[in-house]
Formats: sequence, C-alpha cells, structure tokens
Amino acid sequence: MKPKDEARRQLAEIESIAHEIAPSEQLYELLLRSVASETPLRVKYGIDPTNPNIHIGHLVPCRLLRLFQELGHIAVLIVGDYTAQIGDPTGRNEERPVLSPERVRENARLYADQLYRVIDQDKSELHMQSSWYREMPLEQVLGLMSSFSVAQMMAHETFRSRQDRGERLSLHELMYPLLQAYDSVAIAADVEIGGTDQLFNCLCGRDLQRTIGEAPQVVVTVPLLSGPDGRKMSKSAGNHLPVNAPATEVVGKVMSIPDTLIQEYVNLATTWSPIEKATLVAALDPDGSNAKQTKTRIARNIAAFLCGAKEADAAIAEFDRVHSRGGIPRDLPSLELDTSGILIVDLLVSAKLAQSKSEARRLITQGGVQLDGERVTDLTHHLSPGPGSTVVLQVGKRRFLSLTSRRWGDLDGRRD
Amino acid sequence: MKPKDEARRQLAEIESIAHEIAPSEQLYELLLRSVASETPLRVKYGIDPTNPNIHIGHLVPCRLLRLFQELGHIAVLIVGDYTAQIGDPTGRNEERPVLSPERVRENARLYADQLYRVIDQDKSELHMQSSWYREMPLEQVLGLMSSFSVAQMMAHETFRSRQDRGERLSLHELMYPLLQAYDSVAIAADVEIGGTDQLFNCLCGRDLQRTIGEAPQVVVTVPLLSGPDGRKMSKSAGNHLPVNAPATEVVGKVMSIPDTLIQEYVNLATTWSPIEKATLVAALDPDGSNAKQTKTRIARNIAAFLCGAKEADAAIAEFDRVHSRGGIPRDLPSLELDTSGILIVDLLVSAKLAQSKSEARRLITQGGVQLDGERVTDLTHHLSPGPGSTVVLQVGKRRFLSLTSRRWGDLDGRRD
Repeated sequence: MKPKDEARRQLAEIESIAHEIAPSEQLYELLLRSVASETPLRVKYGIDPTNPNIHIGHLVPCRLLRLFQELGHIAVLIVGDYTAQIGDPTGRNEERPVLSPERVRENARLYADQLYRVIDQDKSELHMQSSWYREMPLEQVLGLMSSFSVAQMMAHETFRSRQDRGERLSLHELMYPLLQAYDSVAIAADVEIGGTDQLFNCLCGRDLQRTIGEAPQVVVTVPLLSGPDGRKMSKSAGNHLPVNAPATEVVGKVMSIPDTLIQEYVNLATTWSPIEKATLVAALDPDGSNAKQTKTRIARNIAAFLCGAKEADAAIAEFDRVHSRGGIPRDLPSLELDTSGILIVDLLVSAKLAQSKSEARRLITQGGVQLDGERVTDLTHHLSPGPGSTVVLQVGKRRFLSLTSRRWGDLDGRRD
Repeated sequence: MKPKDEARRQLAEIESIAHEIAPSEQLYELLLRSVASETPLRVKYGIDPTNPNIHIGHLVPCRLLRLFQELGHIAVLIVGDYTAQIGDPTGRNEERPVLSPERVRENARLYADQLYRVIDQDKSELHMQSSWYREMPLEQVLGLMSSFSVAQMMAHETFRSRQDRGERLSLHELMYPLLQAYDSVAIAADVEIGGTDQLFNCLCGRDLQRTIGEAPQVVVTVPLLSGPDGRKMSKSAGNHLPVNAPATEVVGKVMSIPDTLIQEYVNLATTWSPIEKATLVAALDPDGSNAKQTKTRIARNIAAFLCGAKEADAAIAEFDRVHSRGGIPRDLPSLELDTSGILIVDLLVSAKLAQSKSEARRLITQGGVQLDGERVTDLTHHLSPGPGSTVVLQVGKRRFLSLTSRRWGDLDGRRD
C-alpha cells in the first residue's frame, strides 16, 4: 500500500472511534510521515492515580490507544502522580482534597498493574510525572508559567464558571492544565488522547509545545462513558465499575444501567465491531421489550473482556438465577445465631441489613423481608432455628443471609 | 521606663515616619512583648536586584529600618533574586523582561555593598531568596499556591486593571506576591516594611503566615519618593538617583526637580529632624522666590549624606558656578579638530550634540549654539581654530565642548 493510502486507512480507523481530532489534517500529516519514515508516533494518555482502580470508562480511550498500537504506534502512559496531588479541577465545583504522596504512590503501583489488561505492554512506555517534576527547580516552573496567560487559563469552562459563581478557585488549581501540558513536552508526544472533557488540558499541551518551539501534538478526544446513575463515570464520583471487579459485580452493575444508556454502552464499552454495534442498536425495540436481553449481552461482553468467557458465563447464569427465577445465590454470607434466638428487628440491625431499628421496622412493614421465601409481617417476630438447621433471610431483591443456629457445645465461637 | 511606656514611645517614633501601620494595635503588642522579653523584633525589608544600584527612593524605607535598629530591633534584608526573575508586576502595565540568573546574581552582589551605607550592618541579617527557593520542590510550591485563591490574587489593583484593559497577564506574575509572602515565613518576620505600593504583597505575607499557623506580621508602609519627572522613582523607569552616584550627579538631579516636589523631598529624602523639616516647609515662599535656595539646601543635605560634606560642598559650588553665574565647568570634554576645520552643522552632529543635521540647524536658528560665548547664527559657519588654540562650544545651557586644533605632525591621533 502506498504511504498516502496507508495513512488514510489509519486515519479512517482512528476517526471511527474518536469524538474529535484537533486538527484532523495534522494527524494525517503525522501518520503519513510515520508510515513513510517507518517511525511510530508517540501517543500519550495520562491518568491520575487518585484511586487505585481504573474503571471501564477508561477502556474507551484505552481501546483507542490499543488501536494506535495495532497501527504500529507507541502508547506512552503517564501516571499523574503530581497532578493527582492537585486533582483535576475539570468539571468539579469544589477543590479536591490533596492526597498524600504515599497514597498517590501506592495507587500508582496498583494502577499500573491494571493497565496492561487492556493495552499491549510491549508497545507501551510507562512514565511517572515525578520523574520530571521531582527535581524541577522553581525557576523552570516559573518559566513554564510565563508561557500561559491568566486569561488563557480562565477560559477553561470549569474555572470560569466557578469564578462566576463566586466559588473558591485556588491558585494551585491553575497548575493542573500546565503540568499536564508539560508532560507532553517531557515525553515528546505526537498525539494526546483524552475524554471530551480533557480537550482544554490537551490543547494546553499543544500550545506549550508550540511556544517552546517543538512540534505541537494532535489532540484526539473520545466520548465519556456514563455511570449507572447517568453521570460521567468517575472514580471520585463513586459511580465507577473497576476493571478488576469480579464478574458478578461487572454483570450486576451493567444490568443496573437504565435503558436510556444501552446504546451508549454498546458503542463505548463493548468489544464488538462497528457493524455488530450498529446491528444491535438498530434491533433495540423502542418499547424496551428487548432491553433486558440486550443488557445481558452487553454485560456478558464486558465481563468476558475483563474476566474471561467462563467467569462471564457463570456470572450471567448466577444473575439470572437470583433475579429472573426468584432463586437465591450460591455461597451466601452466613451468620450463626445464639440458641436463645433473636428478634427479627435486632437481627436486621446487627447483620447490617438495616441502619437502625426504625429502618428495620420500615423494611418489614413494606414487605421487604422474607424468611425462607415467606414474607415477615410481624415486627416482634422472634427467630430461633433448631440446632444445626438453616434459614435463608432475604432483604429486598438482592441481599441474602444464611442463618444457622449455634450448635450445643459451640457457645464460645465468634459470632460473625 | 515601664515596658508599656517604652512600647508606646517606640510606636510613636515609628508612626512619625510610617504612612500606614496594618494593624497599629498589633505593632504595639509586638513592641510591648519585645521590650518585656528583651527579644528584638525581626523587621523585614525586601528589594529586587533588577538593577545593581539602589536609589534614594530606597532610603525612605531604609531610614525606617534604621529607626527600628536604633530602637533595638533587627533588620532582615531580603535580596529578591527569585522575584527579580519575575519582576514585580505592581504598577506595571506590561510584563517585565526576565533577567538571567547571572545578571541577577551580579546585581545582588553590587546591591548588598550599598545597603550598609544606610543601615547598620551589625544589626542586620542579609538573606538571598535563593537560599529557600533553590531547593524548593514543586510539591511545596503547589502547597503554597493552594493557600491563595485566584480571586484573592486578582484583587491586586495592578492585576485587575491589566485584565480589565485586556492586557496580557502571565500566570507566573501571580507568583510574585506569593514568593514575597513566603519570604516572611522563611525568615519568621514580625514586621515587614515596604512602600505604599507594596501593601498588597506585604499583606499576602501576613495571610500566608496566618494560614500556616504562624504569627502574622505587621505591615508598615512608607510613602514613595517621586523622581525628578514626578513619577514614582524606580530603577526600571530610569528616573532614579543611585545612592552611589557622584556628588555632582546628586546635586544636578536634585536641583532639577520641579518646585512642586520640594516639600516631598524635604520630608522623605533628607536627614533633618521632623522639626527642621517642618520649619523649612513652613518657610517656603508660595511665589517660589526661595525655591532654588531650598533645593540647594536639600541637594547639599542628600549629597552630604551619600558622599560626605566636602564632596557635597564642592558639587554645590561647581553647580553654582556653571548655572548661576554663566560660568563654564572645569574639566570640559574636549575634541580635536582637523586643521582643515569643519562646518558648525557637521561638528554638532559628529560630536553628538545634535541627533541630525536638521536638529543642528534648528539649534543654531533658535540661538542655542555659542562659540566662546558668542551666539552662532550662520548655518554655514566654518570652524578652523589656529594650531594649538582652543574654542569653547556651548549648546543650550549645560552642554560644553572644548575644541582644539590638531597640531602639525599629530595627524594620526584619535579624534575623540
């Protein structure tokens, strides 16, 4: 294939995943030069170790990274151990708490272990920001700062809106885009990948490279995946699905997404080809009749990618058994009761199935508590299973507890 | 004297020089504790070595420093070798050029040599900012930045007005007040002295000390001295009178101030007592008839302080001779002319007494050019002094040149 045709082919593949390429013509030029000179492009992707787990939202840019790798380029991963100490202010209305360096380091270590489930480690470089920021003298920091104007930074939507609302914006938060920008200089990035909300920060990198006389990177953004609650999936928002979650959690969380997110999950979170995705989306019934079936396929695809096909199948089967056929899951948590027994209200509280006695009473009154499949309605019900026998307590749809009575002669055992 | 009386006495002396004390009650408390515990206060004064020469405007805060020393306290001088690389944006409508570290170091060295003409070196500490900023890690810089909000910094009059006018304000300029503030932490300042335009920066130091749980400094401002052009005297504005200038320059510059500045110079630039100053100001004639006489007294006082009484007297006498009695100064610059002579217009240009031939012609037409005291009116006048003879050329009131004819046999000598 001629270099021009190959560059055009690569660009088309990238465009099929990307949300925006800024600017597209330059990416074509870079790809063309790369093909002609047989020199891989350096494709940067940075992420902050504010939480030890990466989540499936991160898979969207990581899939694009893997595509770049498959096209012959190098993924350059940046663990933002410095920016993590600031916290990306993007989209946040308050300052983040500053993480301790120890916490950041530990998160970074756990973090790196997970990245290579998704991208090809052999075609990757991994850099900690600390390798260039630990020894950076104040003079150099001031020099970098002089490349940006206050007005330029305050053009950041988040900064501006916080200032407009009179909310505190700390001086150090203005450093986040700048540090992320200098990362591009430090690793000589040709391309930077980020979520759509990272466009501002990534363009700062492009500006800084140009200011100091280096070739400016191309910015390629990808759409953001929503969490089950419909907000942007984010570790700090707590609505994330970690990539190292067990298959049962993956399936449970994906099955819990509202029907309105099905199309987004098909397009962004699965490994299917563009044609398979389009077919599945086209087949979605507007009245939602096949929504559950489609979610099950999505859940299986994601779980298989993260945990393997066997685990995925088992988790789907388990989910079905519990939710679809009223079954109870295997391997229930269990609790031994004293032979003297216990009041149902006290049991719910001590087993942490209710926060308080009043919540326990409300759960019972609302019909949410069952013993061996029979609804409990008596608030003064006293449980006293015979020695060695087992009763299954169910609270709501998904919380189960296997209750056994402590055997004679076992009085000194631990309760939980 | 009781500690309270002594503290009140010290406060009154400081108030007689200060423009503002923020807050005055706290300074009284500090003085009282200092007197009672026999612990001197640490009085900070910082200055940027953007120019190797300090000027008489700096004498105003230095006199206050010396007063603190005479009251038993310690002057802590900060050579702002880091802030100098930013340049104090206060009152400036453009960014300053960034000075090289080498230039800053050399200026700092020359600078320190001059400080002790004014204050008592034995009761002083001298610190370079680099002793705490050279090794400051980025984490700590970010931590300091987190103590300030963007809104707080943008409350700085200069920053706000530059932003309002749409003029570039670089990110690193926001660091100037912060670095100056941290200096107060680094040297544990009890008091900071600055010009009235330094109030914002000094109060940032007070805020930072409070934020990190240390006792906040008291800020004492002094009025700013104007240069002969009426603007704030400043090295970078070029209207300054260096403290190491020769007595003739001191006298010449002070004599050139407009009458409207006489009172300010009496009050801020001289060594007279408050009573002597008040008497001199009261004696000023509203019609300006004794303005020149008063300026002469001021010039002599300042020159005597800087260069000694003898030099001052000689400089005053020389000034009088040249300006008051139409005399010509001793030790004129001289120029040897070719024996072939030269046209007066060409001479003015080649001796750099006129920028161009047209300016030279205008000077002659306006009657501003004299030869041996006689006005030249002929634009085509040709000078040709006889061998060994001398003619004095005068342009305007103050520029003189001694012209001699090159002697026979001296044709290869240098012209200037």
